[in-house]
Amino acid sequence: MSPSKKVGILGATGTVGQRFILLLADHPVFTIHALGASSRSAGKAYKDAVKWKQSRAIPANVKDMTVKACVAEEFKDCDVVFSGLDADFAGEIEMAFLKADLAVFSNAKNYRREPTVPLIVPTVNTSHFDLIPQQRALHNLKKGFIITNANCSTTGLVVPLKALQDAFGPMSHILVHTQQAISGAGYPGVPSLDIFDNVVPHIGGEEEKMEFEASKILGGVTADGKEFAPLNNMTVSATCTRVPVLDGHLESVSVKFVNQPPPSVEAVYEALDKYTCEAQKLKCHLAPEHAIVITKESDRPQPRLDRDNEKGQAVTVGRVRKCPVLDLKFVLLVHNTVLGAAGSSVLNAEVAVSRGLI
Amino acid sequence: MSPSKKVGILGATGTVGQRFILLLADHPVFTIHALGASSRSAGKAYKDAVKWKQSRAIPANVKDMTVKACVAEEFKDCDVVFSGLDADFAGEIEMAFLKADLAVFSNAKNYRREPTVPLIVPTVNTSHFDLIPQQRALHNLKKGFIITNANCSTTGLVVPLKALQDAFGPMSHILVHTQQAISGAGYPGVPSLDIFDNVVPHIGGEEEKMEFEASKILGGVTADGKEFAPLNNMTVSATCTRVPVLDGHLESVSVKFVNQPPPSVEAVYEALDKYTCEAQKLKCHLAPEHAIVITKESDRPQPRLDRDNEKGQAVTVGRVRKCPVLDLKFVLLVHNTVLGAAGSSVLNAEVAVSRGLI
Amino acid sequence: MSPSKKVGILGATGTVGQRFILLLADHPVFTIHALGASSRSAGKAYKDAVKWKQSRAIPANVKDMTVKACVAEEFKDCDVVFSGLDADFAGEIEMAFLKADLAVFSNAKNYRREPTVPLIVPTVNTSHFDLIPQQRALHNLKKGFIITNANCSTTGLVVPLKALQDAFGPMSHILVHTQQAISGAGYPGVPSLDIFDNVVPHIGGEEEKMEFEASKILGGVTADGKEFAPLNNMTVSATCTRVPVLDGHLESVSVKFVNQPPPSVEAVYEALDKYTCEAQKLKCHLAPEHAIVITKESDRPQPRLDRDNEKGQAVTVGRVRKCPVLDLKFVLLVHNTVLGAAGSSVLNAEVAVSRGLI
Amino acid sequence: MSPSKKVGILGATGTVGQRFILLLADHPVFTIHALGASSRSAGKAYKDAVKWKQSRAIPANVKDMTVKACVAEEFKDCDVVFSGLDADFAGEIEMAFLKADLAVFSNAKNYRREPTVPLIVPTVNTSHFDLIPQQRALHNLKKGFIITNANCSTTGLVVPLKALQDAFGPMSHILVHTQQAISGAGYPGVPSLDIFDNVVPHIGGEEEKMEFEASKILGGVTADGKEFAPLNNMTVSATCTRVPVLDGHLESVSVKFVNQPPPSVEAVYEALDKYTCEAQKLKCHLAPEHAIVITKESDRPQPRLDRDNEKGQAVTVGRVRKCPVLDLKFVLLVHNTVLGAAGSSVLNAEVAVSRGLI
Repeated sequence: MSPSKKVGILGATGTVGQRFILLLADHPVFTIHALGASSRSAGKAYKDAVKWKQSRAIPANVKDMTVKACVAEEFKDCDVVFSGLDADFAGEIEMAFLKADLAVFSNAKNYRREPTVPLIVPTVNTSHFDLIPQQRALHNLKKGFIITNANCSTTGLVVPLKALQDAFGPMSHILVHTQQAISGAGYPGVPSLDIFDNVVPHIGGEEEKMEFEASKILGGVTADGKEFAPLNNMTVSATCTRVPVLDGHLESVSVKFVNQPPPSVEAVYEALDKYTCEAQKLKCHLAPEHAIVITKESDRPQPRLDRDNEKGQAVTVGRVRKCPVLDLKFVLLVHNTVLGAAGSSVLNAEVAVSRGLI
Repeated sequence: MSPSKKVGILGATGTVGQRFILLLADHPVFTIHALGASSRSAGKAYKDAVKWKQSRAIPANVKDMTVKACVAEEFKDCDVVFSGLDADFAGEIEMAFLKADLAVFSNAKNYRREPTVPLIVPTVNTSHFDLIPQQRALHNLKKGFIITNANCSTTGLVVPLKALQDAFGPMSHILVHTQQAISGAGYPGVPSLDIFDNVVPHIGGEEEKMEFEASKILGGVTADGKEFAPLNNMTVSATCTRVPVLDGHLESVSVKFVNQPPPSVEAVYEALDKYTCEAQKLKCHLAPEHAIVITKESDRPQPRLDRDNEKGQAVTVGRVRKCPVLDLKFVLLVHNTVLGAAGSSVLNAEVAVSRGLI
Repeated sequence: MSPSKKVGILGATGTVGQRFILLLADHPVFTIHALGASSRSAGKAYKDAVKWKQSRAIPANVKDMTVKACVAEEFKDCDVVFSGLDADFAGEIEMAFLKADLAVFSNAKNYRREPTVPLIVPTVNTSHFDLIPQQRALHNLKKGFIITNANCSTTGLVVPLKALQDAFGPMSHILVHTQQAISGAGYPGVPSLDIFDNVVPHIGGEEEKMEFEASKILGGVTADGKEFAPLNNMTVSATCTRVPVLDGHLESVSVKFVNQPPPSVEAVYEALDKYTCEAQKLKCHLAPEHAIVITKESDRPQPRLDRDNEKGQAVTVGRVRKCPVLDLKFVLLVHNTVLGAAGSSVLNAEVAVSRGLI
Repeated sequence: MSPSKKVGILGATGTVGQRFILLLADHPVFTIHALGASSRSAGKAYKDAVKWKQSRAIPANVKDMTVKACVAEEFKDCDVVFSGLDADFAGEIEMAFLKADLAVFSNAKNYRREPTVPLIVPTVNTSHFDLIPQQRALHNLKKGFIITNANCSTTGLVVPLKALQDAFGPMSHILVHTQQAISGAGYPGVPSLDIFDNVVPHIGGEEEKMEFEASKILGGVTADGKEFAPLNNMTVSATCTRVPVLDGHLESVSVKFVNQPPPSVEAVYEALDKYTCEAQKLKCHLAPEHAIVITKESDRPQPRLDRDNEKGQAVTVGRVRKCPVLDLKFVLLVHNTVLGAAGSSVLNAEVAVSRGLI
């Protein structure tokens, strides 16, 4: 890979920011150069500003870095800026960073629906980087751009769907039910009294995100490289629930294919097994060896046993079987704070470096 | 109601048996007369034979009753026999009790598929008691018969489905995803190492049970009272998972109606709200005031907050909304060890008494 | 008991306030007359102001009551005012209510250390009501007064200690380790990410509270009725931890007696069993039949199985055995939101009514 | 270190056995040579015999090894035999292996009280290996011997106690309260219905083990190398509870020193911080960099955040403060399945190799 790139992290004291720091601490390409957080934290040493909630300690080289305010001027030396900001602040700050010609990789939802902002799951649709020239032209930028990664539960869903779409053609109907971990809500996030001995059958805005994002991600880019071509003929119905699990979103999916008859269970397993993506071909540092890990035991995947497969960068799929109502159904698991958040951003940035965009 | 009836409980030391005892301890019609358990327990005082796991203490009048072996001779004075036996033993023992002309209400799965055995959810299809004369004729019995209640997750499902079917005609497709409580697996049941910080996306045989039982329960009895007429045109697809919740199965359901256009969300809420059943009309002791409790908050029903609605004999339904793939979707909650098990049996028996079958 | 008394509840929308409402909904003596909460809630119907988190529904007669601001003028018709206010607000508001000559029963810590404010656990030291005339004289009041109940973990501790002290004389040393439920921290309280798959070995201020309060509660009132006589020769060492349990504080206690040799294990069980208190003798509505419930199984008491003993108004004690370091050790359980909070206040008020103080 | 040693694992399919396999998979000195399990498993490939419950996959080189019966003949080529056998079987099997002149490192309790069997916590009392010649003489062995590691909760306790004893002389009284993880009970172990939303204040035999073992481990070996000299003047009082935590035993400890006045809190922190052990000096592979990790935050150590400190081979200590009843108190955390079980055995074996015993 290319020589070292300086990275900044916005929202560095939050849950996603902490994950960024762990992923980047010993990274072969990226070096943590600047940490940004709220004005309350700015000026403090990182170790004093953060309520560190990870089981690994704060990396030694980060502990005493001085936290900065989230203003572009403070990050102007950064080749890459990762944003773990809350949606409440991300809109304005990320736009200011973009206008300062910085390369921003955002976890927030704010720009996911923008017509020129790629929404990229790194093991699915890095081809959407093709729209960057168009975005730069629009904003009159030389090296800056903004891309976002997807919502954590969408991320898990689209990886096997992409493998199926590549192998068997488009799907017309997707019905998905999620069981999402508490870490997905950040910190302090879900009060223990709400989730203890309980399931909460609703996560605000999550079902709408899944129904929209899947179609943009699984769609393509128009031939002129100027627009996205979402899959408007694919209908998604999502039900999202919160369960008392620490990390790892489990999703039960039923799909119907346009082409009939649908593939057999065996053909589906084979397609999932053979699936590879650009990040793997580019031999990116965080690319999983297998983008999709298959479990054949009848009671897998399970969050606690499978979330760390491929260091959290794979989606694990099992229980592929016929669906009496649609065509086929299966269960998938995604590590919501790794591939579902910071891990996507970092791997996206690795691909962008390899593609020469950074 | 009629004068006191003597009841026996088979499998009295197990999880379901303990629930029977609590439900029957102060019952206005039924008096606990005999307790049956394994030969290891037979001869002991109940309090010494049982590993009592309920938060209410063993009722005083039961504590010192002597446990009997599960042989019909010991239960011949019983007007009603409730069986909480495991499937491994239920087949043989319940058949022996039936042949001894006893009235058996079983929680086990063994006879649910029998052509002359009613599979009754007390707030749904007590009309299936109409087949008892046919069953008695077949076995040459005077007062004995056997009925079973449904699997706990099926029980939750069919209550709102019956209300919808009555109001809007048959449904062609049902897609259901369950999140089932650990108490559904009995004791010792699920090892803590399997379910702690985890979800298990499979419960052996459960999906098949739901797909079969729903169709028998929601179907009718032929005009000659000799056979069941299951809904063979209704297709059910179930995914069943185990979650770290103590009591209460949560189910996410999508349905498609035969008659198009489907009812509106408002019409569905109205139909659910107005639904009543025979057990309510007969003013049975354990009949819920509302067979279906409706929650309108966006994040309900929830197991911990809603499982005790109507003392566990109601099904709570919320989040009725359009389904982009089928017609409508909603979330339901059923107390798996009350309406989903012992509570169904006792209410079924109350209806049978009122119908003069006992 | 005496005719109906009007009661007000301060902090009515909070966790303790919700418990007050459930305890008072069908009370034979007290009638809910006024509900007070923050200015944000004042003016709203209770059902709109509250985030109701109980498994029983809001009582019908409370649902539509208009919430008032916590100003004494609005509560002037109340015979009793129960306060579930946070310590941040309780100090000022409760003092204003006291000065308005109202009878205040507080759950907050603010006045527990005041020399003329009784700190009363209703099954232990209702004799401390004897100081009310002195308090009234001090503040120049006719019918008003303020008493507080104890911290939830102290409450559990002092009940068996009082029984032992009555039977065997004073103790010189108490070493106590608590495992406290999440509901003790209110709502939103403990973030799920902090307590899930975890124990937190510290609760701010809790150890100091236990070490101070036990000595005041177990002490007496001076002969002239003007001062408390705390047990200054009893040393308490507390370690307080938070565990992933919904309700019920478990405490492991080792004690050393002044009088040697210490009582036998059998003598201790007998003393605990025979213990009764004034609230029982007065036949107060919420008085437990047994102030101390004894469990003899080797693995009891347990929070989930024993917290509802005597509707949460008892302390359950088990595992009495010799302590190789001090004299004797045992395990106790108290329902932290019933006897440990609202249940204490209401029972204290019942005693006050019987004593003619209200 | 010395050249590769062949190791066998008894009870290889159990919980402790699985941990052994993970610890030994890439070990620089030990090579897995033979796996032993029950006759039910013998003859099967390991991956078919085991119910694998770890979040890391079965190591590739172990997956297809054929499981053997636990008979010494099958393990005669092994330089080291690790036993993760249940106490029900360990007694007889381990004795047979010893008599076959094999070096056995046992996790079972069976031989911990034997007068010539060292009970070794590898960061505390590897000096007890000095008794091996005496043990060999007794059993007439050339290279075989048996040592055991301690109970998991004792292991956590003795590490800081050894540091204190070395620095400040003997302690006369120890009062310890444990909150132990479910993994300590093996698989299937604790039923979820027993521990969910609950604490169980009793673990059979655990309190007695702690009270005995601490005194043997912290004691020495007589000058002639023929006997252990346990600390008979140190009194230990233990209360052991099970909490809903996956891994990591938390212990609250109060101590009284023989030498008065006792050390200050600062002196204790310094002594804990400076403590080192033979395994560290020998630079053993699994020796922690710090045998004791100190946390200074008021709410640490916590199981989920601190159990993996030093890969589970350290004991983490915090909250050192004065105890009003004894002298000082503190909280410690030990990873029960690493240092508390398999990790102790492997590190003990590493020390034995360095000492030339193997």
